[in-house]
Amino acid sequence: MSAPTATPTRRRILVIGGVAAGMSFATRMRRRDEHAEIIIFERSGHVSFANCGLAYYLGGVITERSDLLLQTPASLGSRFGLDVRVNHNVTAIHPDEHTITVHNHLDNTTTIEPYDELVIATGASAIIPPMPGSERMLQLRNIEDVDALDADLGALDPSTANTVVLGAGYIGIEMAENLIARGLSVTLVQLGPHILRTFDVEMITPIEEHLRAHGVDLRIGTAAIAVHDTTVELSDGSAVAADVVIAAVGVRPQNALAVNAGLTVGAGGGIRVNAGYETSSPHIYAVGDVAEKIGAISGEPGLVALAGPANRDGRYLADTIAGDAVHSPPALGTAIVGVFDLTAASLGSTERALRAAGRNIRVIHTHPVSHAGYFPGAESLSIKLIVDADTDLILGAQAVGRDGVDKRMDVLATATSAGLTASALADLELAYAPQYGSAKDPINHLGYVARNLRDGLSASIQWHEIDAELAAGSVLVDVRTAAEFERGSIPHAINIPLDDLRGRLNELGDRRVIAHCQVGQRGHTAVRILSQNGFDAANLDGGYRTWMAAMG
Amino acid sequence: MSAPTATPTRRRILVIGGVAAGMSFATRMRRRDEHAEIIIFERSGHVSFANCGLAYYLGGVITERSDLLLQTPASLGSRFGLDVRVNHNVTAIHPDEHTITVHNHLDNTTTIEPYDELVIATGASAIIPPMPGSERMLQLRNIEDVDALDADLGALDPSTANTVVLGAGYIGIEMAENLIARGLSVTLVQLGPHILRTFDVEMITPIEEHLRAHGVDLRIGTAAIAVHDTTVELSDGSAVAADVVIAAVGVRPQNALAVNAGLTVGAGGGIRVNAGYETSSPHIYAVGDVAEKIGAISGEPGLVALAGPANRDGRYLADTIAGDAVHSPPALGTAIVGVFDLTAASLGSTERALRAAGRNIRVIHTHPVSHAGYFPGAESLSIKLIVDADTDLILGAQAVGRDGVDKRMDVLATATSAGLTASALADLELAYAPQYGSAKDPINHLGYVARNLRDGLSASIQWHEIDAELAAGSVLVDVRTAAEFERGSIPHAINIPLDDLRGRLNELGDRRVIAHCQVGQRGHTAVRILSQNGFDAANLDGGYRTWMAAMG
Repeated sequence: MSAPTATPTRRRILVIGGVAAGMSFATRMRRRDEHAEIIIFERSGHVSFANCGLAYYLGGVITERSDLLLQTPASLGSRFGLDVRVNHNVTAIHPDEHTITVHNHLDNTTTIEPYDELVIATGASAIIPPMPGSERMLQLRNIEDVDALDADLGALDPSTANTVVLGAGYIGIEMAENLIARGLSVTLVQLGPHILRTFDVEMITPIEEHLRAHGVDLRIGTAAIAVHDTTVELSDGSAVAADVVIAAVGVRPQNALAVNAGLTVGAGGGIRVNAGYETSSPHIYAVGDVAEKIGAISGEPGLVALAGPANRDGRYLADTIAGDAVHSPPALGTAIVGVFDLTAASLGSTERALRAAGRNIRVIHTHPVSHAGYFPGAESLSIKLIVDADTDLILGAQAVGRDGVDKRMDVLATATSAGLTASALADLELAYAPQYGSAKDPINHLGYVARNLRDGLSASIQWHEIDAELAAGSVLVDVRTAAEFERGSIPHAINIPLDDLRGRLNELGDRRVIAHCQVGQRGHTAVRILSQNGFDAANLDGGYRTWMAAMG
Repeated sequence: MSAPTATPTRRRILVIGGVAAGMSFATRMRRRDEHAEIIIFERSGHVSFANCGLAYYLGGVITERSDLLLQTPASLGSRFGLDVRVNHNVTAIHPDEHTITVHNHLDNTTTIEPYDELVIATGASAIIPPMPGSERMLQLRNIEDVDALDADLGALDPSTANTVVLGAGYIGIEMAENLIARGLSVTLVQLGPHILRTFDVEMITPIEEHLRAHGVDLRIGTAAIAVHDTTVELSDGSAVAADVVIAAVGVRPQNALAVNAGLTVGAGGGIRVNAGYETSSPHIYAVGDVAEKIGAISGEPGLVALAGPANRDGRYLADTIAGDAVHSPPALGTAIVGVFDLTAASLGSTERALRAAGRNIRVIHTHPVSHAGYFPGAESLSIKLIVDADTDLILGAQAVGRDGVDKRMDVLATATSAGLTASALADLELAYAPQYGSAKDPINHLGYVARNLRDGLSASIQWHEIDAELAAGSVLVDVRTAAEFERGSIPHAINIPLDDLRGRLNELGDRRVIAHCQVGQRGHTAVRILSQNGFDAANLDGGYRTWMAAMG
């Protein structure tokens, strides 16, 4: 046998929380330090479970409960030499003493555990909105929750039972879909004016319609004000039948340990950390949903409760503790949700938030097909790109459709993280055969539009600017065919089909012209014709389809 | 009406070839210059057809012939004011006179046409390998070809007919699949030792097996030497029955016009162009398959016959002629092909080519699943990443699998074009829900491996280096379970399951250890354990699965 290297200091590293960030940290820490003592304390009875799969287990999509349990304390012990203690609740951190207090629920004992390094990965818990009857609300955060919900739902008679989900964020929507899959009636109650606040209204309205088309009783702009024995009382005066009520209005960092220990937390309750994931107290770190992350777009610390960054940050913290230079990428907030047979994905910031912040932005809507239109199975999708008008950098993206949404969002996430400009999307050489994409991929097309706007070859207005244009005397010209126009049009639009436009310029007088078509492409050609013939012209971005989506 | 701007000079712009690059140029040129005279001469009877869909029309996947015809001369005339002349064959370019000679096949007249700017977009033609009987070979490049093939194939009796495809590149493979779909017997003859030369052997062998499993009689390392009346004679002495013979051994630039006009062409026959797509003769440009492109990895001019770059370059040439600064991104060569229900995609260079060029590279093989393993429908895929060992930049990528291949290749293409390092793939925040990906996406995982290699946390060897390691006295340790080991193992490997490794280090003596598992992940953990215990250790990259694939 080789001579062993000098035995390194056997550090004692404690981890509070054994799911995504905590376990990603612990396994990487072991691979970085074979000799450290690494102990994970997990309050629940399970570690390293598939928290993003819980709703799909309830819906019967994932059929085996064991599939949710990715690792066990025993497997982590034998594979990684980790000391995993489930049903152990950490009740206090003592930074000055470098110790924590741990209560063992199995034998009801309490111990004091010293640490060299302490990692807080307690995650976030479901917010239970305070109201009468809130004790009836169930939640979906861990295996114990899923078992409780499964028992309650299993006791219901699908032909008569009613369920209510409070909150139409990612988890609320996934719950609604899976309750429908289980044959149950679902009312989905959303306080805000729309579901999924990482989307703008014209992008998310089709998803709301899709939820309703699949039988979800969606109540938006509505608050629950009380939970009674068999109903939930809503702010609009109605009451909906409710055998089971699920709270999915959001999560908050489980920061009590940190707060009680005097660690700095931010406005949203996330533990403040530096670029090395270290809290305000030396040798105490925080990763995952309990910790603040720097937003890639805002540059400001905030909360991002997503599995990807949690896993990544746990890993990088281990590298930092192992002695590497600190490395903590900002959080872009790339997220995706399946909504029956539709997919919605987003990253970065919304137009709504950026306009509220006074940012100088350009907005692009496109409605391409998922792959070459002549190949069977091509599906329409809608993409929105929000671009910094000063730098041409990508600030946000949203996409909705049946197919190809995840791929385009991943490409946009990569481009955004890499600092590509929106115009540079035109240059990308993506994998093309007709069943996979288009020779001019939807991503390239976004780049074309961005470059035209950047270079002043095309001007555009947004759907919410039509009224102001009309009020200022602009003429709205629908350049679609007469048949398309007759099937439905924007009020006050006149119809001059694109192929006739060159011959009918004299009908337009000297007014500014807003051209539009179905999706924006013919409108752009119209603007090129008009502006080269001396007109002040702009294209309605995203065309009739975006306008229709915004109108709901 | 607004006062028209001063009438610009009405330029006369001629385009030779009206498919991808030519028509992309022409329509963009019109949008950039409303007043130019733009004439497109197309030798065949059709422009702007779906050349990537031709094989799928023959296979019955695309059912309507009209779906292949994306535009007509009439539609391009009314929409873009383009003068599209099909069945017009340009027979000569006269650079000094700024004219071309055009033969009109419709009325059998010849005219001389002057130009201010001339664009050559004649594409590439199928190589007909010279041999006795080669006049029987059919090809698949345009609508006329597809009509001829459809007629010949339609006359066959599927129960007895035999077809032979020469060449197993992208088009040959697509043809083979679609002939099978049509119920015909197919022999696919490939001169080289493997199909698809943009892949390395261990990545493409599973595709070869897949072709055979679907009934393709694949003959690799075999040349056709003669085509007889009912057979094709092969270099191995055999003869295969052949009612129809299709040549798909490759394409060559249709450069005769350029060569005859004295324009510079490169070694492969592509027209040499500068960064503004201009040939050696001023005001003559070349785009698409007939023109050389600068390789993104090599930095050298070469041939890249792909639809994406052709369309893109046509567009950017129009921008250049319109007065924009030249902009011509290099060609990465991203390509993809469906092979029955598998997908194979690649970009950049192969390990084979880079090693032959003496490049200092790192190679990474992974075998992840397309989305979270606990969610139904997860499919295994194989990814290969080739990294510049000096700069950590991506030099090549290959992926094969049933699902999620196109997405990962598009992300890698974006990262490569953006100049991200391989290690930076670990930082990417991709869209994750369990039906779409993994919290640690296969792309992130490539980054993890790359970073470990870059930082010296793990060393690896390739499948083709095992023999040299064994000869030098290294011990090959299979760290899979005993059950996995018994189902099949690499010769000379000893089995020490990973979970037992810490307790059995004393069995290894002082030899260098090559650890391996099924796909590489446990092997990495083994190397971390070994190296931290004083061993010289390396991981077999890609594990048993890559080795098995290489063994065929």
